[in-house]
Amino acid sequence: MRLGVCYYPEHWPESMWEDDARRMKALGIEQVRIAEFAWSRMEPTPGEYDWGWLDRAVDVLGAAGLQVVMCTPTATPPKWLIDRHPDILPIGADGRPRAFGSRRHYDFSSPSYFAASQRICTAVAERYGKHPAVAYWQTDNEFGCHHTVLSYSQAAVGRFREWLKARYQTVEELNRAWGTVFWSMEYRSFDEIDAPVATVTEAHPSHRLDYRRFASDEVACYNRMQVEIIRAHSPGRPVAHNFMQLFTEFDHYKVAADLDVAAWDSYPLGGLEEQWFAPDVKARWLRSGHPDFASFNHDVYRGMSKLPFWVMEQQPGPVNWAQWNPAPLPGMVRLWSWEAFAHGAGCVSYFRWRQAPFAQEQMHAGLNTPDNRLDVGGNEAAQVAAEIRTVLAANADANASIRSKVALVYNYEAKWLFEIHPQGADFHYPRFAFEYYSALRALGLDVDIVPVDAPLDGYRLIVVPPLPVVPADFAARLASSGAQVVLGPRTGSKTQDLQIPANLPPGALAAVMPLRVWRVESMRPNVTEAVRLADSKDAAAEDGVARHWRDFIDAGSHAPDSLDVRAHFADGHPAYVKSGAFHYLAGLFDDALTVRLFAQIAGEAGVDTISLGDSVRISRRGALTYVLNYGDQTHTLANVADAAFVIGSRVIEPQGVAVYRSNT
Amino acid sequence: MRLGVCYYPEHWPESMWEDDARRMKALGIEQVRIAEFAWSRMEPTPGEYDWGWLDRAVDVLGAAGLQVVMCTPTATPPKWLIDRHPDILPIGADGRPRAFGSRRHYDFSSPSYFAASQRICTAVAERYGKHPAVAYWQTDNEFGCHHTVLSYSQAAVGRFREWLKARYQTVEELNRAWGTVFWSMEYRSFDEIDAPVATVTEAHPSHRLDYRRFASDEVACYNRMQVEIIRAHSPGRPVAHNFMQLFTEFDHYKVAADLDVAAWDSYPLGGLEEQWFAPDVKARWLRSGHPDFASFNHDVYRGMSKLPFWVMEQQPGPVNWAQWNPAPLPGMVRLWSWEAFAHGAGCVSYFRWRQAPFAQEQMHAGLNTPDNRLDVGGNEAAQVAAEIRTVLAANADANASIRSKVALVYNYEAKWLFEIHPQGADFHYPRFAFEYYSALRALGLDVDIVPVDAPLDGYRLIVVPPLPVVPADFAARLASSGAQVVLGPRTGSKTQDLQIPANLPPGALAAVMPLRVWRVESMRPNVTEAVRLADSKDAAAEDGVARHWRDFIDAGSHAPDSLDVRAHFADGHPAYVKSGAFHYLAGLFDDALTVRLFAQIAGEAGVDTISLGDSVRISRRGALTYVLNYGDQTHTLANVADAAFVIGSRVIEPQGVAVYRSNT
Amino acid sequence: MRLGVCYYPEHWPESMWEDDARRMKALGIEQVRIAEFAWSRMEPTPGEYDWGWLDRAVDVLGAAGLQVVMCTPTATPPKWLIDRHPDILPIGADGRPRAFGSRRHYDFSSPSYFAASQRICTAVAERYGKHPAVAYWQTDNEFGCHHTVLSYSQAAVGRFREWLKARYQTVEELNRAWGTVFWSMEYRSFDEIDAPVATVTEAHPSHRLDYRRFASDEVACYNRMQVEIIRAHSPGRPVAHNFMQLFTEFDHYKVAADLDVAAWDSYPLGGLEEQWFAPDVKARWLRSGHPDFASFNHDVYRGMSKLPFWVMEQQPGPVNWAQWNPAPLPGMVRLWSWEAFAHGAGCVSYFRWRQAPFAQEQMHAGLNTPDNRLDVGGNEAAQVAAEIRTVLAANADANASIRSKVALVYNYEAKWLFEIHPQGADFHYPRFAFEYYSALRALGLDVDIVPVDAPLDGYRLIVVPPLPVVPADFAARLASSGAQVVLGPRTGSKTQDLQIPANLPPGALAAVMPLRVWRVESMRPNVTEAVRLADSKDAAAEDGVARHWRDFIDAGSHAPDSLDVRAHFADGHPAYVKSGAFHYLAGLFDDALTVRLFAQIAGEAGVDTISLGDSVRISRRGALTYVLNYGDQTHTLANVADAAFVIGSRVIEPQGVAVYRSNT
Repeated sequence: MRLGVCYYPEHWPESMWEDDARRMKALGIEQVRIAEFAWSRMEPTPGEYDWGWLDRAVDVLGAAGLQVVMCTPTATPPKWLIDRHPDILPIGADGRPRAFGSRRHYDFSSPSYFAASQRICTAVAERYGKHPAVAYWQTDNEFGCHHTVLSYSQAAVGRFREWLKARYQTVEELNRAWGTVFWSMEYRSFDEIDAPVATVTEAHPSHRLDYRRFASDEVACYNRMQVEIIRAHSPGRPVAHNFMQLFTEFDHYKVAADLDVAAWDSYPLGGLEEQWFAPDVKARWLRSGHPDFASFNHDVYRGMSKLPFWVMEQQPGPVNWAQWNPAPLPGMVRLWSWEAFAHGAGCVSYFRWRQAPFAQEQMHAGLNTPDNRLDVGGNEAAQVAAEIRTVLAANADANASIRSKVALVYNYEAKWLFEIHPQGADFHYPRFAFEYYSALRALGLDVDIVPVDAPLDGYRLIVVPPLPVVPADFAARLASSGAQVVLGPRTGSKTQDLQIPANLPPGALAAVMPLRVWRVESMRPNVTEAVRLADSKDAAAEDGVARHWRDFIDAGSHAPDSLDVRAHFADGHPAYVKSGAFHYLAGLFDDALTVRLFAQIAGEAGVDTISLGDSVRISRRGALTYVLNYGDQTHTLANVADAAFVIGSRVIEPQGVAVYRSNT
Repeated sequence: MRLGVCYYPEHWPESMWEDDARRMKALGIEQVRIAEFAWSRMEPTPGEYDWGWLDRAVDVLGAAGLQVVMCTPTATPPKWLIDRHPDILPIGADGRPRAFGSRRHYDFSSPSYFAASQRICTAVAERYGKHPAVAYWQTDNEFGCHHTVLSYSQAAVGRFREWLKARYQTVEELNRAWGTVFWSMEYRSFDEIDAPVATVTEAHPSHRLDYRRFASDEVACYNRMQVEIIRAHSPGRPVAHNFMQLFTEFDHYKVAADLDVAAWDSYPLGGLEEQWFAPDVKARWLRSGHPDFASFNHDVYRGMSKLPFWVMEQQPGPVNWAQWNPAPLPGMVRLWSWEAFAHGAGCVSYFRWRQAPFAQEQMHAGLNTPDNRLDVGGNEAAQVAAEIRTVLAANADANASIRSKVALVYNYEAKWLFEIHPQGADFHYPRFAFEYYSALRALGLDVDIVPVDAPLDGYRLIVVPPLPVVPADFAARLASSGAQVVLGPRTGSKTQDLQIPANLPPGALAAVMPLRVWRVESMRPNVTEAVRLADSKDAAAEDGVARHWRDFIDAGSHAPDSLDVRAHFADGHPAYVKSGAFHYLAGLFDDALTVRLFAQIAGEAGVDTISLGDSVRISRRGALTYVLNYGDQTHTLANVADAAFVIGSRVIEPQGVAVYRSNT
Repeated sequence: MRLGVCYYPEHWPESMWEDDARRMKALGIEQVRIAEFAWSRMEPTPGEYDWGWLDRAVDVLGAAGLQVVMCTPTATPPKWLIDRHPDILPIGADGRPRAFGSRRHYDFSSPSYFAASQRICTAVAERYGKHPAVAYWQTDNEFGCHHTVLSYSQAAVGRFREWLKARYQTVEELNRAWGTVFWSMEYRSFDEIDAPVATVTEAHPSHRLDYRRFASDEVACYNRMQVEIIRAHSPGRPVAHNFMQLFTEFDHYKVAADLDVAAWDSYPLGGLEEQWFAPDVKARWLRSGHPDFASFNHDVYRGMSKLPFWVMEQQPGPVNWAQWNPAPLPGMVRLWSWEAFAHGAGCVSYFRWRQAPFAQEQMHAGLNTPDNRLDVGGNEAAQVAAEIRTVLAANADANASIRSKVALVYNYEAKWLFEIHPQGADFHYPRFAFEYYSALRALGLDVDIVPVDAPLDGYRLIVVPPLPVVPADFAARLASSGAQVVLGPRTGSKTQDLQIPANLPPGALAAVMPLRVWRVESMRPNVTEAVRLADSKDAAAEDGVARHWRDFIDAGSHAPDSLDVRAHFADGHPAYVKSGAFHYLAGLFDDALTVRLFAQIAGEAGVDTISLGDSVRISRRGALTYVLNYGDQTHTLANVADAAFVIGSRVIEPQGVAVYRSNT
């Protein structure tokens, strides 16, 4: 547990640097990220490097006792480089280059840019790889931001063809796998294949899915190049990348596999505003963020980080980039920091030390205002720093790693596949994964978010949000885990090639969940279908509703005796069936019903739950329990007679935090 | 009356074909449409045809006693053809080619594609023109789908100039007809005229309307080429094309004039979701479709078909292409089939035999599921087949053609004109034509939907939805028909050249409806204007409202004695006037008021009506009466003591069908 | 006070001209604007002018005693000119030319077009500059209409670089001023700078603001060229341009500085429909227009016109170009005319004499219908003409110029800056300026709308809507005026270079308003923050709310004693503070609270107010008071015992007008 900050010495007079470093240290900050946008200062003229200023900046920080996270500056190639190699610019779906003048204006498939990146990364890594103040590295910045994973350049198409050749070997196999006979889309050679863009109506879904997979692999390939250069020149320094909240345009697991630290940039208020939440939900959590949004991301990145994950950028006040940008409530910067540590973070690094008075992000708050006074967020960071010292002093296992009883399987291909082939216009995979996660959190459960190929042994409850493509061994691994397993609708509904399984969904999972989804239905937003539990007490009422989606299950065609139909839709079709330890939800249920079912299934799994409602959240790390109050009402903990409070007390005010060690 | 199915032998192993054919026949299917997307299999390499598989497929179907509808495969030119002739691709309004990778990626004006189409059509027609199993032909597939009528290519502009030359002879006449003096848009030669696209603000409306007429003529020209080739090589086999529900981008009457059968593709649920209906209406008819939507299309295509029209593709279950895709209620596939026959269909052909497990439409249901089990729709089709046998056995005139007492005039140019020149943003011609139709259907009336140049003698009631351009002889033909005539607002409001008539609207119709529309008003969706009937009993209440539009009528300037003002708007202007047998509606009234007025006018026409409400619909064909219940309540027929029921009984359950012969 | 009309002789047979001129004169019209779209008739063939028809038209008008407003025809270059110089077409943000076929299809930066414009303007000015019937000139038509100020052509970029060079001298200074070090956007020479368009994410705001300033200057440069040509050939004739309601894409003050008359085109119903008003507000004022919308524009253009401003085009009935186009209530054309004169108009000129039966605007009403009968608007114009004679006969000072006690500062850069850098998606500067104006008008106040560099002495109350950039001397000029000054939120929040001021907002205004805005917050539309007045009587209730925006004020860091916190937000932050004569509103308050605060501050300024509500408006010009009733209820004036009514009486019907001389 430690604090960090993002700092841009190139934005400020050199005369301020020493004071900045001193004040950072005094505030309790231990690490400082620098230089990720500084290419035009590192190399102001082609081939002529200017390291002087950066040498001095690193020295000043090091002299103050701060550890530097050095970045490669590849997110912002300078204008002279673009003018020399216009093919660096990515090509949009409209066929036009995406121009210089902001950031991320590069095509992952551009050979010019790959070479230029190798050169600048090598230069930076050679220069600072063994500098005593440089303790960590960051590659690039926020891969995928501003929808920059996909490019439709000739370079990308050329590399896509190579990628397809490697995957399918022959074009005949590709034609078979995709089913191009449909609509006479058959190819005679890989060279006939273009990017799936600008077609008259929807392009072939398998073609689109493969293009997404290819583009994702390009990101991993590009990052790997940078990591290898850094490791060659800076051995022993962990390498991180700062991912973004809920970004899904590439497979983060694949990129993280090459890193030491999966970091992410946490903006709870901007994230709330820009995501799928309904307007009333956005108003409800306006100045605190949704109680499960940061947590969900913490658990996503924790699940892919070799070392403890970081929050590389923590929102310190209002930001500039959402449609509307409210101010956090007092206390929220502190609460968000503790939420991160409670979920296993190694570092929380605030973005940025001081608000810049110019350019695109001048309205983005920092720990200090542009006139260099400590802002609210700065004061709260100082409080967190002090509290960290208290916690660490008293709890040897405060930095323990986390292993939960509950796993939620999270998958990037699912997002792409459902986006390409939604069947219902609002079928948004991250939302539905989040809703399952949120239901578990409302029951007081700690959750590991894991990839589909993760080891599953040791979990007591495994929740699988809609997962269209499942690995061949998934059924067996789920079964052998001994856990209760919840399968969302559409799970097992597609093959690797984006075809319907020969045995119909759930495809390979039919081995453990013996049913046949013979029909599906997507529902418009003003329609729901009532759900009735088999053991419902009240003969008249419905127990909840399905929204957006339902599967029609043929539950009698396989081993009928093994199936327990636990709920029906109003028209009589099964809504929830159980077979052994496997639970299949044939629709996307409302939040209350989801919580109710998960509580029951957790009970069958022998996992204790509590009913937290929507405002208070609990996490456990080592022997410490963290309780955070996102709501506007005071929350009083019950049954904590034997708790030793390290921070706070059993009465938790709005925006309050309590941390206690349980003595039982 | 017979059933058909759409089948894709190229999608399945040859080993399945014989069983498929046998099961089709056993189910009661008599005709099978094939090959409309099979170009890449017919000609896998440029100039090298592979007919073997198709020969075998046709033989297998013929051997099973099935009649084949053979298609030209021009809706999906293969990749090698596009690579050889990139000018085949249509050019979008954004100036970019619409790419290969889905379907309909061709420009009707491309000379390369015209020649290539001649070649492949000739090859197919030569090969199968006299095959004993080939009983019918289909040209291409769904002309206009995915907005493919309009292209902005150089080839299109060149042919447009020729088209203008033929229409106007001299550029001076064009300048006069369009009124190009406005905004200095005058042309000095036809070669100066471009496509009306990408202009700074709206392009000239007459220019736009002529471009729409030209593009429509290109479709007719292209289809005619195919029909002539087929007729040359396959004499005596009727030629069809499968139009789409409510498509309006070309003049279907002109294309149908070259065909024997006007067929259409009926998707009641997708149609409901994708059309103008309000969200609550979409929810109301979610799983049944709107009771008048399929009927409206049946009557549209019946009105342009030389032989009995067909439903070439009948929705058999959930589809894949609407924003949301609900499942039909049990019974609806049967009900839709009988709705088609009740309206005069010669064939109802289901799309498709078996759901494909791959490509764009893998989520589109078929009569069989992908694992080759008969789906709900398949069972209902079998029921319909059995019922057809019953009906035909007992009723010699079951296949009678239909001639109604009521005609509704339907026009494609009206759609284009109002789209180009709406004056009110939501003035959607097909919607308003549909609302008039629906009001007539709610009164139990059978309706012929006819073009503006149709013979009108014999009708008792003629309803004209807003029809901006009327032929010179229209007033005389309406008058000589002896029918009561209802004219919607905006009728006669424009000349052929899209100018305001010299005598103001209703232009040439002033001869029979002596008024002058001196002002018009479009109303935003949250505004209505109350309407008050002259014979209203209740002094206080309004009798209904106008929405979207009203005409301001000068009813006193012509022969005032001949005009009967039957309703006023709240501000005193006339809302409904009558002159002899002509009724002019000066606004778009709400549904209830429209039904009330139409009932009154039908009474004056001596046409009996009944009040059916919104869920039950009645049609008559020959001596049989068909009653269909789209609602969720049981409907009991009154006054049918002398009815002999062929299907069902006087008590009609939801989604139920009754057919009876009246003995009086 | 006089009436005019817009006339297009080229649209009508020459045989009609004399009768048209005679009827205009008889109706009371004195001036006629012609020829602004007639280039293709003036020069039908390149270089060959045809002046004959125009000579005759001007002669006919002159002979009837009408004064001609002659126009340059540059808003509609003919097709042959475009074909010769395709670089005339402006380039859209999508990189494509905006095509010929409507109007305003030219790039202000095109050297070809600048030369062609010089040539045609010289030809027209030479021909008619000294014609006795030509009394005035109009340059071009509606600069900026259809978003034509911005072009992204190479010509524009080239001139932009020159503009930047002139502004910044060195690229180093530009880099500093913009802050290009952020995201490595530094330039090494002016030639590296492109237009700020098509970037991956938002382009640099200072770059965008400068491009807006540059494009605005191009309009002024282009207009100045025309004015200089006209003045050279037609000395003594005032030159006007017809601006548009609420257009903000260029700095109208800069263009007007070269003109004699700032005219504008008033379409109250189209304006209501197309602006920001909520749907219920649009329905409320559907057929009258918003009571303050035309007035606001009158006062904007009055404030920049050397001679009395004109309404060059007055809506005479329904128009064609809004999404929905309702008909004005009877009396509204008259009311709008008097509203203009009440605000100081020199001329109200109706658009157009007769509705054209062809082309884009055929559904735009005129004073006459297309069949040449006087329409409702024509009759009301005749009534106004008669009333003008009455007013002028009895009141020598009826044409007096206006100088109000209240000034509202209005600024075009503010619109651009907030559009580029909104921080809250719905921060629409003209709306918030209008809301302040409307609050003043609801208090019965006459308002001068003035630029930021206007002399301020003599005003008693100065209202400054959100004004991000303030001149260096603004604080001093405000202070020395002696007026009470209201500053809206965000005032002084940016430097000229679009940076945050070093001392934080309100920047230079801190000299007179000693506070520090240390944080801001934008609020989504479904969120408000309650405001509580310090002197509120009722302990429980809120006094109003802030919407969209609030500033967080540090009111204690400067001279705390001088600050009076007069209202707080619900969370305790100051909402309204006063320092001496300066009032700072830290949020955008609801209408009722704004009216309440302005009434109180006007009282402190010694300016009398009355409470008019939302329907009745009062203006004073010379010794006459004008009262206009936009509402649907009769309004009876109180306290007018000594009033001598020139038009109407103290009882004012809906859509009624009263004009009286006060004898006290």
